[in-house]
Amino acid sequence: MSAGKKTIAELTRENREDFQMALSVDCVIFGYEQNTLKVLLIKSDLEGFEEEWSLLGDLVKRNENLEDAPYRVLKARTGLDDVFLEQVFTIGTVDRHPAGRVITVVYYSLVNIRDHQLKLEHHELHWHPVYEIQSLAFDHKKILDACVKKLRAKVIKYPVVRNLLPEKFSLRALQQVYEAILDTPLDRRNFRKKFFLMNWLEDVKEMETDVPHRPGKLYRFKKNNVSAAVATPINKL
Amino acid sequence: MSAGKKTIAELTRENREDFQMALSVDCVIFGYEQNTLKVLLIKSDLEGFEEEWSLLGDLVKRNENLEDAPYRVLKARTGLDDVFLEQVFTIGTVDRHPAGRVITVVYYSLVNIRDHQLKLEHHELHWHPVYEIQSLAFDHKKILDACVKKLRAKVIKYPVVRNLLPEKFSLRALQQVYEAILDTPLDRRNFRKKFFLMNWLEDVKEMETDVPHRPGKLYRFKKNNVSAAVATPINKL
Repeated sequence: MSAGKKTIAELTRENREDFQMALSVDCVIFGYEQNTLKVLLIKSDLEGFEEEWSLLGDLVKRNENLEDAPYRVLKARTGLDDVFLEQVFTIGTVDRHPAGRVITVVYYSLVNIRDHQLKLEHHELHWHPVYEIQSLAFDHKKILDACVKKLRAKVIKYPVVRNLLPEKFSLRALQQVYEAILDTPLDRRNFRKKFFLMNWLEDVKEMETDVPHRPGKLYRFKKNNVSAAVATPINKL
Repeated sequence: MSAGKKTIAELTRENREDFQMALSVDCVIFGYEQNTLKVLLIKSDLEGFEEEWSLLGDLVKRNENLEDAPYRVLKARTGLDDVFLEQVFTIGTVDRHPAGRVITVVYYSLVNIRDHQLKLEHHELHWHPVYEIQSLAFDHKKILDACVKKLRAKVIKYPVVRNLLPEKFSLRALQQVYEAILDTPLDRRNFRKKFFLMNWLEDVKEMETDVPHRPGKLYRFKKNNVSAAVATPINKL
């Protein structure tokens, strides 16, 4: 737009060919079960991508707010309506989609699979172990990889793994979640030492029961504690 | 998209009216000078918004990758070509733009104003103190507010204020940056104590010179340290 005043009609006319894009959302729903980080995928129904798995997504409707779309998609495809979705990033590479210029906004969520049973079974839906996935339809493998990278950075800074654990859990269970997400074994002593520095947990004064090993103490995440202990006081000085 | 296989042509045809959107980028360039957090604004040249200030932005061209657009806009409007821009979030509310359905992707950057002199002067460009801004064109005030909130959360978790300071700086100067961003006075002793816990700084073994107060020790940010000290070891266990 140049320095002179411009009317809306001029703007629209001059840029008509830029108004031929579509917007989509893709949902990366991470789940956790059997000590494994998984992601919810659906069998693609698009020509050229048959038999390939893809993320849950759809075009945003012309009269639909962007932020409503991922909830609609998730509900329609899985029946899930109790999942909080967070926007992660937007990908708008030219030619990324075979149907035209489609910009996709990626949302992610972390859910405890046991507490979020899929309610619709007629789509070909499946929880896949994240680190076993070799390829996906479209550029979804690239999207997934970027999302995994964000997730790994996030769990180190914020207590988001609370969404993957029951209310009360042992430090052993906590470490298993971190190992599953970071995809690497962690040293028990170091993990506990560093984790307690964050001051996210409180002791619930109970022990594990019915476990095949020595019962551990149970902890829970403190309420309303979304930032690291070190950082909070800086904000509150 | 239903469960049956679908061709690309069918997909495009069925969703033709969804392919009438445009994509824009808006750049929130935060700057710092005279102990004040500022943002770079431009006088709007669009009918109905004359005399209002807006963020630097433009429509993404049909054949332009999304990630190239904010650099083009910044270069064209300010001459700046040495600024790193980070994608923050995307806003796609229906009817947010008078020219049609325009989804905007917001990018942000933090620059030391003294080191980034604007090279083009013919646009009406200005650095505005962030906390004095009452309104902006379009929904740009809402975008700015959301960006400021993100920035405030970010400076607590990551050493991004390094971009606002000279290589060597005193703790007094460091505290002033934090006070400018958080828009609140901080307690000197508490600030220093909490900041050193993050382990981001190293002592350069030099003192300030030519200052009207007692010279302070100079520090610099450690190289390649992008995460908090507390968190890093968890990733490296």
